[in-house]
Amino acid sequence: MTSNITSITSELLLRNVRRPADTGLVDIRIADGRILSIGRQQPAGPDVTSIDGGGGLLLPGLVDSHCHVDKTFWGGPWVAHTAGPSVAERIADERERRFKVGYPSVERTTALLKQMSLCGTTHIRTHTDVDPDVGLRGIETVQAAAGSLGGIIDVQQVAFPQQGLVSRPGTASLLKDAVKMGAKAIGGVDPAGLDRDPLGQLDAIFDIADSTGCEVDIHLHDPGELGVWQIWRIIERTRSLGMEGKVSIGHAFCWAAMSPEIESSLLDALAKAGITFTTAAVFSRPVLPVRTFNNRGITLGCGNDGVRDLWSPYGNGDMLERAMFLAYRSDLRKDEDIEVALNCATYNGAKILRLEDYGMDEGCKADLVVVPARNVAEAVVMHPARSLVFKNGKVVAGAGAGN
Amino acid sequence: MTSNITSITSELLLRNVRRPADTGLVDIRIADGRILSIGRQQPAGPDVTSIDGGGGLLLPGLVDSHCHVDKTFWGGPWVAHTAGPSVAERIADERERRFKVGYPSVERTTALLKQMSLCGTTHIRTHTDVDPDVGLRGIETVQAAAGSLGGIIDVQQVAFPQQGLVSRPGTASLLKDAVKMGAKAIGGVDPAGLDRDPLGQLDAIFDIADSTGCEVDIHLHDPGELGVWQIWRIIERTRSLGMEGKVSIGHAFCWAAMSPEIESSLLDALAKAGITFTTAAVFSRPVLPVRTFNNRGITLGCGNDGVRDLWSPYGNGDMLERAMFLAYRSDLRKDEDIEVALNCATYNGAKILRLEDYGMDEGCKADLVVVPARNVAEAVVMHPARSLVFKNGKVVAGAGAGN
Repeated sequence: MTSNITSITSELLLRNVRRPADTGLVDIRIADGRILSIGRQQPAGPDVTSIDGGGGLLLPGLVDSHCHVDKTFWGGPWVAHTAGPSVAERIADERERRFKVGYPSVERTTALLKQMSLCGTTHIRTHTDVDPDVGLRGIETVQAAAGSLGGIIDVQQVAFPQQGLVSRPGTASLLKDAVKMGAKAIGGVDPAGLDRDPLGQLDAIFDIADSTGCEVDIHLHDPGELGVWQIWRIIERTRSLGMEGKVSIGHAFCWAAMSPEIESSLLDALAKAGITFTTAAVFSRPVLPVRTFNNRGITLGCGNDGVRDLWSPYGNGDMLERAMFLAYRSDLRKDEDIEVALNCATYNGAKILRLEDYGMDEGCKADLVVVPARNVAEAVVMHPARSLVFKNGKVVAGAGAGN
Repeated sequence: MTSNITSITSELLLRNVRRPADTGLVDIRIADGRILSIGRQQPAGPDVTSIDGGGGLLLPGLVDSHCHVDKTFWGGPWVAHTAGPSVAERIADERERRFKVGYPSVERTTALLKQMSLCGTTHIRTHTDVDPDVGLRGIETVQAAAGSLGGIIDVQQVAFPQQGLVSRPGTASLLKDAVKMGAKAIGGVDPAGLDRDPLGQLDAIFDIADSTGCEVDIHLHDPGELGVWQIWRIIERTRSLGMEGKVSIGHAFCWAAMSPEIESSLLDALAKAGITFTTAAVFSRPVLPVRTFNNRGITLGCGNDGVRDLWSPYGNGDMLERAMFLAYRSDLRKDEDIEVALNCATYNGAKILRLEDYGMDEGCKADLVVVPARNVAEAVVMHPARSLVFKNGKVVAGAGAGN
């Protein structure tokens, strides 16, 4: 089975599924890429293709709000990890080896996007390396890969200065060019720890965002008070430029160092600035507090981060497994808490990507996943192979997918 | 497919597999439950059943050195988690609810043992609750479940005073009875934190071990200096009773609190006492240092801990996935480091369980797993469905397994 979209009929009837809040099985009528209606035992009518959901759990399409599909070796030869243990050493190792191992590759990126789609992901936001050596070839590669897949997965790109911005002259103008090419956001990375010029990097990023209208999505690995201090600087710039709702921060490992009092005032300021976050629950690095963010109205997404690249050999692109990592690392054991974790990989991710008409109600876009599980907690804990994946109202994985 | 042992012929030829150190594919001749010979293109001969390993990676049977198969709901209705967040609250919740949810159940335990076997586990050490309320029914239940499976998985029991020993009068004599019934070891749990009488619990346990000849395997969740202090007390008792090699400690979350100097002297003392450890890489709890233990000659095993029980809804019984958790949480990214992590779930576990003739050399017992992976790192990272599982020289899962 491959993941090409089938074109069967204009209307589909997905029978025998259950949304998390449903008390029994429902049928979902789908046409023109949207959910037409939901009810028990909907009539199929003529010219309607009926698909059995097998009593499975229906979820909205999974959203990966932080990944790096430009860097992956997915589907290719095994590449052993060689980098040293620090972020700086990993960046140096990548800079040394990446072209030798074939980066960037439309074939590898396409393979990972297909894998993500098979796992029920319908939208991703991916950070694509931009620097004077690779130029914009990463951006072009991801566009080519996504474009070759006929719409089975929507891809937003963040033009990402992985090697630094202030310390890599020429990168800033490439970021602007990437926005012109369609990148929805520009990134940043450890303004203090990597560039050693926190205000310099942040001012450069926000200046580009202000002049181009793009969004901002910053990697922040810097730990402890150094990281927290930079979050405050990001808040200041977001508010002074009126960019509320258009700024996101990834990782924010510094959160683990915070006292409850500082955390509370920071959460207030972040809520006012409409800044969103993504956590990936990687390795033993700190995980952002899922329930606290939920309770305080801060949108927290979830992402795979790197999948099988020079940074790490781990990952399989599955956002349901990633939601399990997030819930597990967060010690969430109650059904309702595990559901809050899954929301990071669905509704919250959709907010970060600013998706319209996302969800499982009538009128929503028919980007859907059927999981053979009795409830959300079991779906997350077991993350079993998906029964069906729909994108734009068409079956892209599972029974009925194209050949 | 079920997991019953097939009885096909007395000799099997497993073709086209590769052990981690092999440079090419080999064939494995298996007879009378053992590996007869290993070589390239072995002749099949008459009356020999030939099985194609498909070029997969051959590993020795996986060993789970710390689990709780008596408590599981595996294969039954979903049971939502209700306990509070502390170990004490979880013990209290379990004590309140366990009989209402059907504990102990031969059916549930059997279902989990089958799942473990399907995942390539050939040996487990399981901690079975023993206390005045349940008596020895847990021990009997696990024996009945294991006995019903025709030898597809070997089960060692640790009689485990989950609710405390000093604080639960009557438990000590039940532990002795459990040893008479066949329990290979007796357990303990947080002598200070739970029983509030560390010397009392430890002396009681070691007294039983000394008088019955059984081994000791103690849960130690107690954190920081309190936990470290108890490890020293365990070392003292191990050495004074001449129990070197017969004492193991599970979890030891306290390790995270240690300075390098204290760690080094403790490692020396543990090596002299021949004390082994098991870590399960659960939630965000500290993981024992895989490489340090390996370098210092301390045997570190790995286990699933609880699988879908009143303590947590997580887990699937798969030791290859658990090895991934261990490697991932330990930030092991290089191929050779990931192999050290996998050893915790194979050779090190075999040492803790004191298995004889374990491994993949000629003469070893033919307890083997074939994994569709190119190398150990990929096997751990992806933990794909097993191609074949052999126990006692017979196929118990994968192609050729019984119906």
